[in-house]
Amino acid sequence: MKKTLLLAFALAVPALAAAQPAADQAALLRDQAMRGDTLAWELVEGLTTEVGPRQAGTEAEARAREWAVRRLTALGFSNVHVEPFEMPVWMRGIERAEIVAPFPQPLVLTALGNSAATPASGLEAEVIGFQSVDELRAAPDAAVRGKIVFINHAMAPTQDGSGYGQFGAPRRQGPTLASRKGAAAIVVRSIGTDYHRNGHTGVQSFGEGARPIPAAALTVPDAEQLQRILNRAGERPVRMRLTLTPRNIGRRQSGNVVAEVPGTDPAAGVIIVGGHLDSWDLGTGAIDNAAGVAITTAAAHRIMQAGRPRRTIRVVLFGAEEVGGGGGPTHFRLNNPAGNVVMVGESDFGADRVWRVDFNFAQGNAALADRIAALLAPLGIVRGQNPAGAGADLSQWVRAGTAAIDLNQDGTRYFDYHHTPDDTLDKVDPAQLRQNVAAWTAVLAVLANAPGRIEGITPAPRPAR
Amino acid sequence: MKKTLLLAFALAVPALAAAQPAADQAALLRDQAMRGDTLAWELVEGLTTEVGPRQAGTEAEARAREWAVRRLTALGFSNVHVEPFEMPVWMRGIERAEIVAPFPQPLVLTALGNSAATPASGLEAEVIGFQSVDELRAAPDAAVRGKIVFINHAMAPTQDGSGYGQFGAPRRQGPTLASRKGAAAIVVRSIGTDYHRNGHTGVQSFGEGARPIPAAALTVPDAEQLQRILNRAGERPVRMRLTLTPRNIGRRQSGNVVAEVPGTDPAAGVIIVGGHLDSWDLGTGAIDNAAGVAITTAAAHRIMQAGRPRRTIRVVLFGAEEVGGGGGPTHFRLNNPAGNVVMVGESDFGADRVWRVDFNFAQGNAALADRIAALLAPLGIVRGQNPAGAGADLSQWVRAGTAAIDLNQDGTRYFDYHHTPDDTLDKVDPAQLRQNVAAWTAVLAVLANAPGRIEGITPAPRPAR
Repeated sequence: MKKTLLLAFALAVPALAAAQPAADQAALLRDQAMRGDTLAWELVEGLTTEVGPRQAGTEAEARAREWAVRRLTALGFSNVHVEPFEMPVWMRGIERAEIVAPFPQPLVLTALGNSAATPASGLEAEVIGFQSVDELRAAPDAAVRGKIVFINHAMAPTQDGSGYGQFGAPRRQGPTLASRKGAAAIVVRSIGTDYHRNGHTGVQSFGEGARPIPAAALTVPDAEQLQRILNRAGERPVRMRLTLTPRNIGRRQSGNVVAEVPGTDPAAGVIIVGGHLDSWDLGTGAIDNAAGVAITTAAAHRIMQAGRPRRTIRVVLFGAEEVGGGGGPTHFRLNNPAGNVVMVGESDFGADRVWRVDFNFAQGNAALADRIAALLAPLGIVRGQNPAGAGADLSQWVRAGTAAIDLNQDGTRYFDYHHTPDDTLDKVDPAQLRQNVAAWTAVLAVLANAPGRIEGITPAPRPAR
Repeated sequence: MKKTLLLAFALAVPALAAAQPAADQAALLRDQAMRGDTLAWELVEGLTTEVGPRQAGTEAEARAREWAVRRLTALGFSNVHVEPFEMPVWMRGIERAEIVAPFPQPLVLTALGNSAATPASGLEAEVIGFQSVDELRAAPDAAVRGKIVFINHAMAPTQDGSGYGQFGAPRRQGPTLASRKGAAAIVVRSIGTDYHRNGHTGVQSFGEGARPIPAAALTVPDAEQLQRILNRAGERPVRMRLTLTPRNIGRRQSGNVVAEVPGTDPAAGVIIVGGHLDSWDLGTGAIDNAAGVAITTAAAHRIMQAGRPRRTIRVVLFGAEEVGGGGGPTHFRLNNPAGNVVMVGESDFGADRVWRVDFNFAQGNAALADRIAALLAPLGIVRGQNPAGAGADLSQWVRAGTAAIDLNQDGTRYFDYHHTPDDTLDKVDPAQLRQNVAAWTAVLAVLANAPGRIEGITPAPRPAR
C-alpha cells in the first residue's frame, strides 16, 4: 500500500512542476509538500519501527545504515554509499539507586554517557546536594570527598532551545568537577522539562586528569524527591546505594550514509543537508533524529522528482552524533578537499514545526536569503537575526567558511522527550512534520536552482547546543 | 516550620466557628479549607516522601502504618489503632521483553499482579495479536497455543473514569482467557491514557482452573510499536523473548489504621471516611492514594478543631486495597457487628477537583442531601443522579444497607498516571487538593452534626471500578 501511494505521488508532481518558472516552482513544490507529503512519515515510522533504538557503534546502528542504503536506493537517489569510521563504544548496564536512610525507597535514574561503573554490588555513600554547578565548584573538597554529589536545578522550556547550553552544565561539567573534588559518584537532575520517570541521558566526557566516576541523571520527579528527602532529613545523613554497570567495549564501526541528487552543473557546487542516523539507546530516536533524516530526505526527493536541479544536493545521514560526533568530522575530512560544497543545513531539533529561519550567507547572496524568507513566510516562519550555524554534524563546514541555513524548529516540548525512553513515534505530529518538509523543499528548490554563485562566508563562532 | 503552621491554624478556627449556627458553620469551614488548607498537602508530601512506595504486605507498608499512627496521634485524633490482617504477597522481579525477529529491539513492559514467572533466562515464542478480549475469546485454541498473546485496544480519557471497567477487560480477563487457550504468556496494552514509557500495572487473578502464565502490560508507546511491527512483518512471524521473575512470597501482615473524632451522641452513629494507605510498588502512590488519605484526614481534622461533633467521625486508612482489598473486608468484619455505622464515603480517585456529588441516602434524608448539594455548588460541584457506592474499601457497607456519599473527582488525567512509576507528588495540584478538602469538610460538617437520624438504604449493585 505504501509503495503504491509513493508511486502515484511521484508521477503526479514532475509534469506540473516542470511547466512553472523557478520561483513559482518552489512555491508549488512547497505547497504540494505541505498538503500531501507522506514520505517523511513513512521514513520516520520505518526507521523507528524496523530498526528502533540505534546507538552509535552497535549492531543496531549498522542495521540502520543497511536500512538507509536500501531505502535511499529504492527512492532513486544516486551515489548511495557508506562512509565508515571507527569509534570507542560505551554501553549502558544495570542502573539502580535507592535511598538507604533515613527514608528507604528506590529512585529512578539513567547513566550518563562515559559514566564509570560502580562495583557490581553497588556503592553506598552519603548524598551531598547542590543547587548548581557553581555551588559545587565553590564547595570545599573535604565536604565532597567520598560522597555522592547531587546537583539539582530547574530547566524551563524555551521555543528556541536556548536553555540547553546553560541548563546542560550539570551534565557536562558536573561529573568532571565532582571527580576532581574526590566524589564517589554524581547524580544530576535530568536535563529535561518533563515530569515523567524517564531519565534524560546524554554524553559527557571527563576532563583532563579527572578520574571517571559513576555519573547518572535522576528523572525530574526523582530529583525533586531526593531534594525533599534532603530537606526532611534535617541533620540525619541521607545515604544512597548506587549501582551502575556500564562498560567500554572498545572500538567499533560506525558510518555515514550518503546519497545524492546529481546536479546539471558541477561547477555550481554541492548543497549538503541531512540529519543523524544514530540515536540514544533508550528510545527509538523518533524526534532525535529519525525526523531530521526523514525531513531532509523527503525534501531532496521532491526536488529530484521535480526534474534535475542545477546544483547537486547531497543528503548525509550521520553516524555517532549522540556520542560526540564522529560522523560529521569524517564527512568533512573526506569531502572538504574537493572544495565544492557551497551550502550546508541540518535538521536535528525534533519534528515540531519550523518557526524561524536564520541565514549565514555572504553579502552577495542577500537577495537569495530574501527570496527564501519570502517563500517560508506563508508557512508561519519568521526571519531571525542570528547567524546560522548548521547542526552539530555540519558545524565544521561553517567554521571553514561555507554558507549555512538554519530552519529552527519549535523546541517548546523537545526537552520533554530528548534522550529519554519517551522519544518514540507517537511524539511526532504528522502535520508539523509535513511543514518541515515543505520548508526544506522550498529552501532546496531555491538554492539548488539559483543562478549565479553561492559564495563563502566569514564565519562567526556559535555557542554549542 | 510545618508544625508551627498547623498550630497557628488550629488556634484560629474554633473560636470563629463555634459562634455560627450549623449551616453557616459548614460553609465557613468549607471556605476556610478552600482558602488555606495546608494539612492535606503536608500529609501527601510526608507519606510519599518519608515512606514512598508501599506495596501491601511489605515492610514499606508497615512503615506507612507507623507513619500514619504517629501523624494521626500528633494531630489529636482519638482511638488511633491498627487493625492487622494477613494476606498473600506477590512481588515483582526482573521484567524485560525484546523482539527477536524480524525487527530486533527491546520493549518496555511491567508485570501484572499475580503474573507467573518465566524461566530465569526468559521464554521465546511467536506473538499473536488481537484488538480486543472478544477477538481473543473467538480465536481457535490451536491458533493461540504456545504463543505470546498480545491484546491491543485504545482507552480514551473520561471525566468520570467510566472507561476503566470496559477498557480494563484485557488486564482482568485477558490472562485467564489466554491461559485457558494454552498461551505461553500474555502482554496487554496498558490500561492507560498516556504516551509515556511507563507501564500500568494492576491486579488480575487467574480464574478457576486457569494455570497462571506470565502476564504483563506494555506501555502505550510499546503496544503501538508492537502493533506496527506486526503490521510491517507481513507473513514473517514476530518472535518475542519475555523475562518476568515475580515471586509469591507467602502470607505477610497488612493492616488498616483507624482514628476517630469522638462524637457527643453515641446513639447518633458513626460516619466512616478514608482512603487507602497501600500503593503499587512502581510510583510513590501520590494520587493513588496518599491524596485520599490526606483529604479525608484533613477534613476530619477541621471538624475536630471546630468543636466536638454530634456523631463520631472515623477515618480509616485501609491496607492492601491495590491487590484485592483485604483491608475493607477486615474493617467491615470487625466493626459491622456494632451496628452503629450510618454513613460511608471514600476518596480514591486521585487529587483533582471534585466535580460531581452522588448520594445514596434514604428517602427520609432527602433534605440532608439537598443541603449538602447546596453547600458543594459554590465549589463548582454538580449534583449527579447515580446511587453512591462509596469506594472499593467501603462497598460492603453499602451492600449491607449503609447510606453513602460519593465526591467524584475529575478523572480526565487520572489514567495517565494510575499504577505507573509516574504516580508521584508532582502530579498533585495543591489548589485542587484544597478543593477536595473543602468539599469533604462541608460534607462532614453537615453529616456529623445533622439532627435526627441518618437512615439505612436499600442498596442497588454498582459496577466495579
